[in-house]
Amino acid sequence: MFFKLKTSEEIVEILKDFEPSGEETISIEHALGRVLSRDIISREDLPGFRRATMDGYAVFARDSFGATEAVPAFFEVAGEVMMGKNPTISLLPGQAIKISTGGMLPENSDSVVMLEYSRPLDEKTIEICRAVSPLENVILPEDDISRGECVLKKRHRLRPQDLGVLTGLGFTEVAVFTRPKVAIISSGDEVVPIHTAPEPGQIRDINSYTLNALCLNAGAEPVMLGICNDNFNELKAMVQQGLSMADTVWISGGSSVGTRDMTIKVFESFDNMEVLAHGISVSPGKPTIIAKINSKAFFGLPGHVTSALVIAEIFLVPFLTRLSGEDPSCPFACQHLEAELARNINSSNGRDDYIRVRLHLKDGGLVAEPVFGKSGLISSLLHAHGLLLIDRNTEGLYQGQKVKVRLFSSSAGRGIA
Amino acid sequence: MFFKLKTSEEIVEILKDFEPSGEETISIEHALGRVLSRDIISREDLPGFRRATMDGYAVFARDSFGATEAVPAFFEVAGEVMMGKNPTISLLPGQAIKISTGGMLPENSDSVVMLEYSRPLDEKTIEICRAVSPLENVILPEDDISRGECVLKKRHRLRPQDLGVLTGLGFTEVAVFTRPKVAIISSGDEVVPIHTAPEPGQIRDINSYTLNALCLNAGAEPVMLGICNDNFNELKAMVQQGLSMADTVWISGGSSVGTRDMTIKVFESFDNMEVLAHGISVSPGKPTIIAKINSKAFFGLPGHVTSALVIAEIFLVPFLTRLSGEDPSCPFACQHLEAELARNINSSNGRDDYIRVRLHLKDGGLVAEPVFGKSGLISSLLHAHGLLLIDRNTEGLYQGQKVKVRLFSSSAGRGIA
Repeated sequence: MFFKLKTSEEIVEILKDFEPSGEETISIEHALGRVLSRDIISREDLPGFRRATMDGYAVFARDSFGATEAVPAFFEVAGEVMMGKNPTISLLPGQAIKISTGGMLPENSDSVVMLEYSRPLDEKTIEICRAVSPLENVILPEDDISRGECVLKKRHRLRPQDLGVLTGLGFTEVAVFTRPKVAIISSGDEVVPIHTAPEPGQIRDINSYTLNALCLNAGAEPVMLGICNDNFNELKAMVQQGLSMADTVWISGGSSVGTRDMTIKVFESFDNMEVLAHGISVSPGKPTIIAKINSKAFFGLPGHVTSALVIAEIFLVPFLTRLSGEDPSCPFACQHLEAELARNINSSNGRDDYIRVRLHLKDGGLVAEPVFGKSGLISSLLHAHGLLLIDRNTEGLYQGQKVKVRLFSSSAGRGIA
Repeated sequence: MFFKLKTSEEIVEILKDFEPSGEETISIEHALGRVLSRDIISREDLPGFRRATMDGYAVFARDSFGATEAVPAFFEVAGEVMMGKNPTISLLPGQAIKISTGGMLPENSDSVVMLEYSRPLDEKTIEICRAVSPLENVILPEDDISRGECVLKKRHRLRPQDLGVLTGLGFTEVAVFTRPKVAIISSGDEVVPIHTAPEPGQIRDINSYTLNALCLNAGAEPVMLGICNDNFNELKAMVQQGLSMADTVWISGGSSVGTRDMTIKVFESFDNMEVLAHGISVSPGKPTIIAKINSKAFFGLPGHVTSALVIAEIFLVPFLTRLSGEDPSCPFACQHLEAELARNINSSNGRDDYIRVRLHLKDGGLVAEPVFGKSGLISSLLHAHGLLLIDRNTEGLYQGQKVKVRLFSSSAGRGIA
């Protein structure tokens, strides 16, 4: 059976059909990085009271009108607003009350004179040398957020400041989409567990660990099902296990002809199965298979570590974003850095070519150095910082040309000043 | 006591003095995002045997020399290499053996003829229509990684592909720096726990949660110690608790004059204490205090949610990177995106001004829209995607100008195609 290779664009379209599998309510302590499954409507005003934004004296602004350095206005100090307390006092004309940033304004005051513009005359009296306008240095009860306002939208992934808004408004729980659960299988008679010393001809199970880590970085929940021999019944049983417990099943391996055929045979043995792609016109990673079984996506990834990981970066990280429910319209979701190409690269294979590149600084700008190596070498990924796409209609790129490098997805430590 | 404000550059220098507090050995399953505390030297060759990179026939290249479509070379098929097995067979001249990608080459073979260039004549014979060179379609035992090679350097933060290299080489444990442990305290009589309904004048504890989340994003280990009233003994006890359990202590609050003084008094009550900064020439966040007690860094952050979080993004995320042991020389560690400014912004306060901006796409490029709002409003952070620096020597920026926007640090979902 022959299949026409799908283009990258077709794969992106195909993967738009998948959605989060459910929602759950979780405590706000565990909500960082999770995706909202419902709009958040504020039930309160924030801050909820008239709040000082400066240290100084709360006054009725009109009493300060005309005050200057030469002709100050005098105020009787009627007391001090205690932090966190409702000041029961109500100001009389000509009175001021001491207040700190964040304090609540008493009745009959409408503004705060900054400490810098006040001078104590005696224990009970101050003079101020600058007029204030009504509401100066004051936040109104609903200035930050007002009751009934939609503060965060469904499909938003929660950041630190979003948690701040939620906790500030008293949301201690939040409804989110369930995290995409990914069942990971390594197939191949040559693959042995990582704790094992491989015999000649064998190789340790690398793909389970790289794919597992990639899922964690993307906020998904991976489950390593382990290694499967090139055996129809064993593979079918594992796929069934993955199907029953996860939202998507990823099988790496099967780079040998026999295994590749077997993976397809296992897929075909399921009812309600549709092959969505049998080969993609990209390099590395051409022999990738995508199928849908009972509306869950199955990926048959190449066994080559590099190929599997490049395909995962390019197609599966965005797929997980979609499965997590996050709004895919974010204008800068995929991080590309501009760099100058360090040397010519040929690419005339008619496929989208993802070149591994290493970045370094030169004269304040980034330079992208291709990391070449024989097919299947993981060391090419080790030395690379990201991927450079040469699309199938481009024959190559020139030294000195400005290119966009797609950084590998990562999770932490991106904040050096 | 008056202090000269420190510049941003001085703060960056000051924070270079801190180092990871220790190292530990952890299982590879938990090593994603951790920072290596030692170089990793390979104890093995990878793949460790001569491996086919294509499906086809292993041959002795010389036997194929001269083969063309018109004058093919004939081979006797001596069997098939089983995946994961050491092929005990040794080829005789004129023999070929079937092999799959990843299979081990038998003795007296040195290259693989691709399946596409072979044609079976009968069960035992094939013809090939293209010569191969020695080592064609073959990886040598040490081609990917060789024994004794330093594959990963101390101070490297582990990515998915790095875990692949480690597992491939049989490292099931790895020595890493301990994660920075951060004790977080919210201070202020007006701050109440998030499960509480605030009385007029009170506000829920937002800062503990935003700072906690920021630490998690940076790969640190935060501990929320809770809320502290404006009380010397209580604050001192909490700081002592933080000091005993964490690598750094962060206190937010104390935006009122009294509390600010008290934070300083608490710091001063410790032996072996040094105030490193008392105020920074940035906006927001000027009243930030930094001290060192027993070689641990203490941060007194503003109580304003926005100020505290901006200071944390600008100075504390890089500080955590340093405390995690990660090599700070990575050329693209801090993610900046180029955008066009949507409107003029004035800034003439003599401080580095961090403007919150929202990004949107327009004609294929990013546009940065400043998010303004009164001081202390968390909603400005809610609507922002990142920060735009107007340094203290610049009086403002113009509409249409190209600017660099520093994205807020985040942890997941950055991979949309």
